[in-house]
Amino acid sequence: MFEAQFQTFEDPEGGVALTARLSAFREELLRRQLTGFVIPRSDSQQNEYVPPSEERLAWISGFTGSAGLAIVLNTEAAVFVDGRYTLQAAKQVDTTAWTIQPLADPPPENWLSTHLTAGDRLGFDPWLHTSAAAERLAKACKKAGAELVPVDSNPVDAVWSERPAPPLGPVKVHGLQFAGESESDKLARIRAEMTKLGVEALVLSDSHAVAWTFNIRGADVAHTPLPLSYALIPKDGRATIFIDSRKLSNSTRDHLEKNANVEEPDAVMLRLAGLARTGAMIGLDAATAADALSRMISAEGGKPMRGTDPVAMLKAVKNTAEIAGTRVAHQRDGAALVRFLAWIDREAPKGTLTEIDAVEALETFRRETGVLKDVSFPTIAGTGPNGAIVHYRVTRKSNRRISPGDLLLIDSGAQYEDGTTDVTRTIAIGDPTDEMRDRFTRVLRGHIAIARAVFPDGVTGAQIDAFARQFLWHAGIDFDHGTGHGVGSYLSVHEGPARISKLGTTPLKRGMILSNEPGYYKTDAFGIRIENLELVTEATIDGAEKPMNGFETLTLAPIDRRLINAHRISKRELDWLNTYHARVREEIGPLLDDETRAWLDAATEPMSH
Amino acid sequence: MFEAQFQTFEDPEGGVALTARLSAFREELLRRQLTGFVIPRSDSQQNEYVPPSEERLAWISGFTGSAGLAIVLNTEAAVFVDGRYTLQAAKQVDTTAWTIQPLADPPPENWLSTHLTAGDRLGFDPWLHTSAAAERLAKACKKAGAELVPVDSNPVDAVWSERPAPPLGPVKVHGLQFAGESESDKLARIRAEMTKLGVEALVLSDSHAVAWTFNIRGADVAHTPLPLSYALIPKDGRATIFIDSRKLSNSTRDHLEKNANVEEPDAVMLRLAGLARTGAMIGLDAATAADALSRMISAEGGKPMRGTDPVAMLKAVKNTAEIAGTRVAHQRDGAALVRFLAWIDREAPKGTLTEIDAVEALETFRRETGVLKDVSFPTIAGTGPNGAIVHYRVTRKSNRRISPGDLLLIDSGAQYEDGTTDVTRTIAIGDPTDEMRDRFTRVLRGHIAIARAVFPDGVTGAQIDAFARQFLWHAGIDFDHGTGHGVGSYLSVHEGPARISKLGTTPLKRGMILSNEPGYYKTDAFGIRIENLELVTEATIDGAEKPMNGFETLTLAPIDRRLINAHRISKRELDWLNTYHARVREEIGPLLDDETRAWLDAATEPMSH
Repeated sequence: MFEAQFQTFEDPEGGVALTARLSAFREELLRRQLTGFVIPRSDSQQNEYVPPSEERLAWISGFTGSAGLAIVLNTEAAVFVDGRYTLQAAKQVDTTAWTIQPLADPPPENWLSTHLTAGDRLGFDPWLHTSAAAERLAKACKKAGAELVPVDSNPVDAVWSERPAPPLGPVKVHGLQFAGESESDKLARIRAEMTKLGVEALVLSDSHAVAWTFNIRGADVAHTPLPLSYALIPKDGRATIFIDSRKLSNSTRDHLEKNANVEEPDAVMLRLAGLARTGAMIGLDAATAADALSRMISAEGGKPMRGTDPVAMLKAVKNTAEIAGTRVAHQRDGAALVRFLAWIDREAPKGTLTEIDAVEALETFRRETGVLKDVSFPTIAGTGPNGAIVHYRVTRKSNRRISPGDLLLIDSGAQYEDGTTDVTRTIAIGDPTDEMRDRFTRVLRGHIAIARAVFPDGVTGAQIDAFARQFLWHAGIDFDHGTGHGVGSYLSVHEGPARISKLGTTPLKRGMILSNEPGYYKTDAFGIRIENLELVTEATIDGAEKPMNGFETLTLAPIDRRLINAHRISKRELDWLNTYHARVREEIGPLLDDETRAWLDAATEPMSH
Repeated sequence: MFEAQFQTFEDPEGGVALTARLSAFREELLRRQLTGFVIPRSDSQQNEYVPPSEERLAWISGFTGSAGLAIVLNTEAAVFVDGRYTLQAAKQVDTTAWTIQPLADPPPENWLSTHLTAGDRLGFDPWLHTSAAAERLAKACKKAGAELVPVDSNPVDAVWSERPAPPLGPVKVHGLQFAGESESDKLARIRAEMTKLGVEALVLSDSHAVAWTFNIRGADVAHTPLPLSYALIPKDGRATIFIDSRKLSNSTRDHLEKNANVEEPDAVMLRLAGLARTGAMIGLDAATAADALSRMISAEGGKPMRGTDPVAMLKAVKNTAEIAGTRVAHQRDGAALVRFLAWIDREAPKGTLTEIDAVEALETFRRETGVLKDVSFPTIAGTGPNGAIVHYRVTRKSNRRISPGDLLLIDSGAQYEDGTTDVTRTIAIGDPTDEMRDRFTRVLRGHIAIARAVFPDGVTGAQIDAFARQFLWHAGIDFDHGTGHGVGSYLSVHEGPARISKLGTTPLKRGMILSNEPGYYKTDAFGIRIENLELVTEATIDGAEKPMNGFETLTLAPIDRRLINAHRISKRELDWLNTYHARVREEIGPLLDDETRAWLDAATEPMSH
């Protein structure tokens, strides 16, 4: 009945077959007179989703997590992963050939400086590391008396005979009705920022920035409509977009050429070198620009200025059209999600559904909107103990039956042309325990504290993050991830620079969209997360002495009342919940069939103390 | 009847008489072939309170604020002050000779680089700037094509004929009953930290660090029992303390010589140079070490390593004896404060008292404890509009009558050998307005949110700061200072490195003492602040999954019930208030005469909704 087109459930390959690859790679290093090599899980733009042609880390080590690093030395090799991937790495990586090491505390550089010996030559691909990362590697090498050697071509690619071709997803114009601002107006605003920065040219090394600036979308990586590309914006004169022309239709090319020259990707170094030779100060995005760019600019006599890409902040603040679009997208998405919630409420108590069934059903309901472009990330559907794995992705092997007495945590999102969604609901299957209700109620109170928060201009996500944790802290518990991330507009579901986290140093500005997703995870037992997207808006307060902001909740779907201890929440919190549920009923109800609407009416009935 | 011995009420001098000083100073610069000079408000250790011999900024400009900077050029001169001192500076500084500029946003370096011209030689005294500050100056000079020139002797001193001699406050041993840890145990812990840092020697450039390490206290500056001194701790071998021997009695010298050599202050450069010539890595406190130290170490071939002084963190975490001491100090101080509060409640409604009367009475009650060493800072007693000036200090000129209908904000503290206190209460004189009660209640709820906070190990002050602001934010208001600062143990009332503020990046550790002082200030109308000191303690919670911490309130004094809207605060908040008041009654009551105890009983009666 249901199926998933945008998500697979296969276990990644791994283990013994890969040992031959490691041997071949070591021979290649020998040929190049390198004693070691660093293989990060990244492409040349530090993208979250990378095309198959860039999956060097997975190819050589078997490890398929979304963050990690391998270092291959003559006799030793290590894969560095963070806490959420320790178990997965142990399963995927052949531990007779590799050791598994932490990705932080201590960093891989510590391992490097103890495992390198004086005179060693450690290779790295300057296209796959930011300059800051390259500098950390260089420092670790120096400490051991070794040398960090940039390579012109990646030695993994030399032995990866079946390496896929780079993607050629067709590029489409992102219409003004969605984008809300013309390319020329955006370029004018970018140039005003460039003047403030004092740069004569700006490199857009982040494809998201190119997509936003020139109002295009692509299809090169999973789940994000990214057109892999670069752009170079001089302060005066025409911008240039570097993109594989096979991805462009005539009309898309015409669209781009209104404001820019279009050249092939390999021309970026040539054009940049030309600019550098004039001695120009050239702005580079510290977070995404490959070290190769910075090296070349310096080598040719230019001045690279690394900093925060000004486009990142412009892009994060959504305009009127984008806000109107996302409101509609969230109504549409909410209706699909409510259909799913009603369905699971009906079917799950029978005890026959699995996590994969849930994923397939939810994607199907979303696809039936007729306008789904992709899911915005692989749906996380974790029941029972799987719910406690924060970054769980169900596979045929891990797939678990959804059983009465369990909680089902389902975190999912959609890509529509008018908006990107991201929502998590935790559903009681059968009767929840008192502990589940207590924990859920604490998570909900934290969620409401963020949703109701009011704060002055200039306040950052770091300043309000603890609002979401306070009720958990009072019970001696916490959750081990940030409270929220920025969300793009038919772009990446994880978008900088603002976030609600102790690391969130960017002020929250009106027009930003952020997730609000506190949780609680009891290892081997259950997981809870409640996530809505929130729009930063002006808070109008009588007698306010300064500009104040708050959140407008965009996500529309009921929160499971069976998990709420109504007598443990305050009057104000209860008011928020009942008002929110009334809004869900009002905005989503008209989009539903009678049966689902009846379910929604019951699921959103007001609660009282 | 009452008098103040530790605080004066004089207006500082200023104005025309100072123009002769500026001319003489410019002539001195000419003799030295300097085109300008920088005069910070600091001594060679970046102390908060500086001795009169170091008040160069006040001497030349007339400006007596606790933070600021002057720059004198050939034809122009500017005094840089922060927002709280703008009005004061305008009154004190002769604006025909000086312009008044902001101390931040933009920084003085911006002014410098536009006012210097190529070839200019800007002098600075490397003893009065940290290396980071000196680097900022050097960069600004470079930008203008000018040169930053360190001087061997300060040109202000050359023309300041009546300059006071440096202070020679007698040094006393801080007994083990108060200090709780012997000097040798402290040195062993410091050396363990030095091993972690990889330094071969550590310079204590902060007299607080010297006082803590060697268990001594002094009398060189106002309000803090600081023995101005340096120390040099090699990883192996004896430490050396550099201190004017005229400040030492024979017994104090014997105490110090158990663990260290004692030399005169000017020997510090000699000893440090000797160490530097061995090529040693030498640790320097980035926050207090003069640039002169770092320059000399580098010049002699040593390696200066600037960072956070490890002693700062050791000192911030109080031991059992210090905690026991501060509890007793807070009871004693609470009793004095309650006597004051009862007195003002009796006398103020008559409308004859002034702010100075309040300051004198409070100091007198504290002095009558028989063990007061000093006030820990000049008492802030602001009534009516004066209460809205955050750093108000009453003078004979500003002194205001305490009138019915006004609020009185009184922020004060004491130095006792067993502990340092800091407490603010806001008192209703006559009937408060609804607005005052609303604002006070919001400030109180924020104060209680901090006092009741529970948080895991590793959480910083930045993460909980907004707890104190949330109820103000909901009304569109805020307060423009941090929520809390660290407090020393018979040392500085403002002690790093932890603080509760958006800038507080140090984790809150058990044993730290911090203030909790949210406020609200309505310009030209009234000021509100409620301040208690809090001790970070373990929070014991059934079922806790990680180590949790909370606060134990140290300060014991009633919070004015007439300003609280009991029906606007939650059950939990009311419970906190009533429990706190019961504790105040129980701990302070036995220390009072019958009349005051009767007042306290009434002032701490339980409130209900």
